[in-house]
Amino acid sequence: MKTIEKLQSYMESHNIDYVWITTPENINYYSGFLSDPHERLTALFVSASLTALVVPGMEVNDAKAASNLTVIGYSDTENAFEVAKHALQIPDSIDLYIEEEHVTVKREKLINEHFKTKSLQPIDQVIKDMRNIKSDEEIELLKIAAQYADKAVAIGVDALKVGISESEVVQIIETEMKRIDGISGMSFSTMVLFGDHAASPHGTPGSRTLQNDEYVLFDLGIIYKGYCSDITRTVAFGNPPKLHQEIHAIVTEANKRAIKIVKPGVTISDIDRAARDYITEQGYGEYFPHRLGHGLGISVHEFPDISSSNPATLKPGMVFTIEPGIYYPNEVGVRVEDDIFVTEDGYEILTGYKK
Amino acid sequence: MKTIEKLQSYMESHNIDYVWITTPENINYYSGFLSDPHERLTALFVSASLTALVVPGMEVNDAKAASNLTVIGYSDTENAFEVAKHALQIPDSIDLYIEEEHVTVKREKLINEHFKTKSLQPIDQVIKDMRNIKSDEEIELLKIAAQYADKAVAIGVDALKVGISESEVVQIIETEMKRIDGISGMSFSTMVLFGDHAASPHGTPGSRTLQNDEYVLFDLGIIYKGYCSDITRTVAFGNPPKLHQEIHAIVTEANKRAIKIVKPGVTISDIDRAARDYITEQGYGEYFPHRLGHGLGISVHEFPDISSSNPATLKPGMVFTIEPGIYYPNEVGVRVEDDIFVTEDGYEILTGYKK
Repeated sequence: MKTIEKLQSYMESHNIDYVWITTPENINYYSGFLSDPHERLTALFVSASLTALVVPGMEVNDAKAASNLTVIGYSDTENAFEVAKHALQIPDSIDLYIEEEHVTVKREKLINEHFKTKSLQPIDQVIKDMRNIKSDEEIELLKIAAQYADKAVAIGVDALKVGISESEVVQIIETEMKRIDGISGMSFSTMVLFGDHAASPHGTPGSRTLQNDEYVLFDLGIIYKGYCSDITRTVAFGNPPKLHQEIHAIVTEANKRAIKIVKPGVTISDIDRAARDYITEQGYGEYFPHRLGHGLGISVHEFPDISSSNPATLKPGMVFTIEPGIYYPNEVGVRVEDDIFVTEDGYEILTGYKK
Repeated sequence: MKTIEKLQSYMESHNIDYVWITTPENINYYSGFLSDPHERLTALFVSASLTALVVPGMEVNDAKAASNLTVIGYSDTENAFEVAKHALQIPDSIDLYIEEEHVTVKREKLINEHFKTKSLQPIDQVIKDMRNIKSDEEIELLKIAAQYADKAVAIGVDALKVGISESEVVQIIETEMKRIDGISGMSFSTMVLFGDHAASPHGTPGSRTLQNDEYVLFDLGIIYKGYCSDITRTVAFGNPPKLHQEIHAIVTEANKRAIKIVKPGVTISDIDRAARDYITEQGYGEYFPHRLGHGLGISVHEFPDISSSNPATLKPGMVFTIEPGIYYPNEVGVRVEDDIFVTEDGYEILTGYKK
């Protein structure tokens, strides 16, 4: 079943008559049309009688080429909401389902003013739940995306030499990856951090140069046909100090312990706990300040949230990262991240680069 | 005067007691701390007695290093709004000024629930007006950013040869630019489009290869020390058809006519009209489907909107793009874009690559 049909069927069975989707990734998920509208309005409108895209005039042709839906264009001098209200014949006083996590307070006011809605209701969770369970076609794309992430790490490792800078390694990786057909870009700015520079979990690669006997942290991903991968490997260059090697071994073990318990029915917070408890037992709990992982798909950060506060359980078709880390100030930062697919009776690890 | 002092002084003179800023660029503008928080909350809170950053726990050190403000951290398992409410001692029933164009409906509900506010009021326009008028220091950075954009176009033009693909040219440009000290990245994904492929105003570079005698459209910019440039040049490779050359001449003339009338006091819609009327007179009005330009600064698209519907007038210190275009289906797309700085008595063109 096509994703848009899944949504229509959900709407029918839940008495939802009007949906207004504005998050670019969600529009893409349901319509096949991906666009970065900046401040201009782009929306997917779904009702029982009509499914249509509302786009800036200059994107009408692209939208028609990407999807077989009705496309409504508006010019920069028109009010997009008025154009939509009339072209889509949106009645007054409807309950309109919107993405509360995307619609701004400003847009909320414009919707109420121009559409004359009775109420705005959230559709966020419905969309998350749908995107949360990947189809076979989506899994295939995520596998390929993960394999290219492995390749990107290998390219980075090959480039390592004393004196090279973090930014230079980033450039080598990104240049190679963007040459590959089907890869539209990186999932996020590639992170390559040397030695103590990795001790901040969100550091930025710069002119720091590589010395002998330190760890190199790679955190990167690519977008293959719209689907993201995300891998982290912390790789020894030479023979790093014993303390650093010990930290690396603890993080790797925490990563494996969490992965090992993945299967349908397991509570998500328990997966976080499996890694966190081990790191805490080893005395480094305070240096693991973030959640264990996050969902992965069209967006590099999506549902589910793999954290100690998520009481949901795993279902077949979910894909997410497992990425424990220890950031030991002024010394070293180690994170080991894999992309995990929940199968009918366990898991499959999509990323394969040696840990 | 520092930007945060400007804001505090505005608040005092307008009886605004509490401001809650969440747009990353605006947090950076006022605090010096730039972060991409994804779905996590990052906020700059300003009151008469306290100015503080609220950031995810893992970014506390980075925030302290980037600014000299009080920094409040929260962990992934804490409710960020509850942490902020208590740490910042936010009283109940206040009028809180937020960015209506950034706060989502979901966050609006969380603010109301946890902060127990009396009302939420918009601060968007105040911030836009402040960012709209650049200081001398900002102008210096924007000039350098524009000069590097010129250089980037020159690198792209040098790389042109029959058979090279659009993506290859993009790679050559981006690799060179990211090597330069002070350049943190491109303002947006670099656009290089060959021949008829440029006939869509928002095309994506791909495997299309260059032939003799066609136009090449470059639209790109770089971020230098936090400030963006944005240039478009459409450059002849060989000797394109006469019709294409005619369109190129019309767009270039439209660009020059609009720039010529820039000075303080001029109505913004008149600048759009100067370019649009000329293109319409020449018979191509329907193929110029977008506004003339946009403000430029910390963001590549910011205030002011240079469109036919903007009744505001120009003020010294404004910086924006002027970028008329003609997209002639299946034939050619031409856009010519410059970055313009409004001086006390006229203008200065920051971009300099030959048109």
